[in-house]
Amino acid sequence: MRRWNGWGDEAIEYPLPEPALHFLQTRLGPAQTPEDARLSSVLEMAPNSRLPVHGLVTTDALERLRHARGQSLPDWIQLRAGMIDSWPDGVAYPSNREQVRLLLDFAQEIGARLIPYGGGTSVVGHINPLRGQAPVLTVDMSRMNRLLDLDPRSHLATFEAGVHGPQLESQLQERGFTLGHYPQSWEYSTLGGWIATRSSGQQSLYYGRIEQMLVGAELETPSGRLVLPPYPASAAGPDLRHLALGSEGRLGLITQATLRVRPLPAQEAFLGAFFRDWEGGMEAARNLAQEKLRLSMVRLSDPEETETTLALSGHTRLLGPLLRALRLLGYGPQRCLLIYGITTSPPDVSRVQRRAAEILRACGGLPVGSWPGRTWARSRFKAPYLRN
Amino acid sequence: MRRWNGWGDEAIEYPLPEPALHFLQTRLGPAQTPEDARLSSVLEMAPNSRLPVHGLVTTDALERLRHARGQSLPDWIQLRAGMIDSWPDGVAYPSNREQVRLLLDFAQEIGARLIPYGGGTSVVGHINPLRGQAPVLTVDMSRMNRLLDLDPRSHLATFEAGVHGPQLESQLQERGFTLGHYPQSWEYSTLGGWIATRSSGQQSLYYGRIEQMLVGAELETPSGRLVLPPYPASAAGPDLRHLALGSEGRLGLITQATLRVRPLPAQEAFLGAFFRDWEGGMEAARNLAQEKLRLSMVRLSDPEETETTLALSGHTRLLGPLLRALRLLGYGPQRCLLIYGITTSPPDVSRVQRRAAEILRACGGLPVGSWPGRTWARSRFKAPYLRN
Repeated sequence: MRRWNGWGDEAIEYPLPEPALHFLQTRLGPAQTPEDARLSSVLEMAPNSRLPVHGLVTTDALERLRHARGQSLPDWIQLRAGMIDSWPDGVAYPSNREQVRLLLDFAQEIGARLIPYGGGTSVVGHINPLRGQAPVLTVDMSRMNRLLDLDPRSHLATFEAGVHGPQLESQLQERGFTLGHYPQSWEYSTLGGWIATRSSGQQSLYYGRIEQMLVGAELETPSGRLVLPPYPASAAGPDLRHLALGSEGRLGLITQATLRVRPLPAQEAFLGAFFRDWEGGMEAARNLAQEKLRLSMVRLSDPEETETTLALSGHTRLLGPLLRALRLLGYGPQRCLLIYGITTSPPDVSRVQRRAAEILRACGGLPVGSWPGRTWARSRFKAPYLRN
Repeated sequence: MRRWNGWGDEAIEYPLPEPALHFLQTRLGPAQTPEDARLSSVLEMAPNSRLPVHGLVTTDALERLRHARGQSLPDWIQLRAGMIDSWPDGVAYPSNREQVRLLLDFAQEIGARLIPYGGGTSVVGHINPLRGQAPVLTVDMSRMNRLLDLDPRSHLATFEAGVHGPQLESQLQERGFTLGHYPQSWEYSTLGGWIATRSSGQQSLYYGRIEQMLVGAELETPSGRLVLPPYPASAAGPDLRHLALGSEGRLGLITQATLRVRPLPAQEAFLGAFFRDWEGGMEAARNLAQEKLRLSMVRLSDPEETETTLALSGHTRLLGPLLRALRLLGYGPQRCLLIYGITTSPPDVSRVQRRAAEILRACGGLPVGSWPGRTWARSRFKAPYLRN
């Protein structure tokens, strides 16, 4: 069961490792945990729904609470303190675009505000109802999660827009393909949300951001269906796909989309290197990007994030000797960790790795092999659990 | 001096090679050349200008004729037959965006239509005045051709939008950079035109189409200046650059643009291969593209274009033996020529060439080395002269 007032599934815990706790206490002092509001008492605060009865809409208080807030820090504080001052008046789970159409028509008839809801992982308030006179209907797209079409020749896949990351990748990977779009919210965020927010992912350097993957889309808008047909490139006027991208629900509900997919990569590796300071790391990251080496990721941490990453890595026994060795080599308190990913097909990792190491060394970098990359890859979607 | 009724400079002739003439006569019968209208008699037909006097606007008949038509077949027929039924009423050559602003204000005051004019190479009527009540003012951007800024660290160049291909490349190349945007109209077409028409180039596979190069732009619009600031990527709403791209002059005049540029490539090669038929060539082209091999061009000709290319190649003495050898190997009348370009930096042509040859052979292709590619590269901008 997904947490109502935190990140992820209740069964998954990510307790703070001992060195990380020490690291935080050194900086912030000992923690005082405020008491969380209980679910039952928050539910009692639910205002009456202002929506008329509709067969597709539930006004159940728990459903409304679960769709009241996203995952920003203010959202969390409000949820855990039980201070929810605006609720959706109802929630609908359409199964197809005809039902989406019915819900849009219903909202127009009664003058309700309609909020398209994907995975509810927004950290900028997209899905929070505003207080006001008009009733608010939240449309949760999670039942529309099917692969509608896969063209293995042209490498195009069409999905319903409510599909979330793991559902999308498993449907593709069992057919030998991947989208390769990995925002940190990947476990919950949806295709429609990625499009509506112009999402980028951890390996966008190789797979492209969502705007480079999107080939076509369909939206249900207040004035009818908008079809953005799939085509590779066109010189016939402005590209309307770039209005849907980043539209944040204002144009309508994205019901399905056609995406460029790729055959599963032949090889993938995540590696790490240390720099003496931020400037050296920046220079290396720029050179890696400008040479258009076939990398899937370049992630440079500043000194503070580097220390946090090391503290969280869990390599408790190795950490002391490693840090001493780094210091001896001149990689002191200003050191920065750069993690880079290599994704190739056909197999070509070693050539790219050699060239990347040349570029890193030329900027004062110290390649340290795969352990920082492996650590990162293992916990790439775990960081949000830490916030619980 | 540029031809008033044909392509390119009057000093450049590209007569039809003998085998090509024979090839055409076999298919179409002997040619009958209609007599061209003389410039002086066409100029006599110029209607009176309906524009009030303005210091930035000339109403000279030759200027108006030179801006009356583009380069489509209907445009050419009208020019060479002297049947010009719509003329701009005046032409202006602004030197800066303040003058562009003055011209827009002037056009609004008097209710004139304004046509932004780059290189005048449109083949779809963009710059042809429509007949009608309103006077037509054509704004020729060719004086705005300067490099305004080059950031060698971030690889960004800002140009005035009236710069044409050779001016743009020479200003970049003397500083060690290239844009690499080569539409066939490159000798005359301008940056502003490339943006307004979403232009692609002969090596867009490597350098990207213009929409992938454009980082920022400024437009003078009827209601003021529109600044699209340069940024790499953003999730903050729709991307307005994609409205300017393909706007075809309807939003305003593009006055300057910031582009991603690249260091001059270390190595470049153009190679060729034959296929027994179109299907084999298609398969190979798709596989080359989907493997994302570092190619700058993949150009597949159907049997008819293949024969035309061979006939135009000028390799008169070699052609007979070559065609016999191809036939013996099973590459008969349905053969298709695929030309591919490899552009790499750092030097890496031979690795890419080996892998490309593997893919081509797997689809029944016969790599024949660099002569077809060299021939293509030598005449890549010459084909339009042939139409004269």
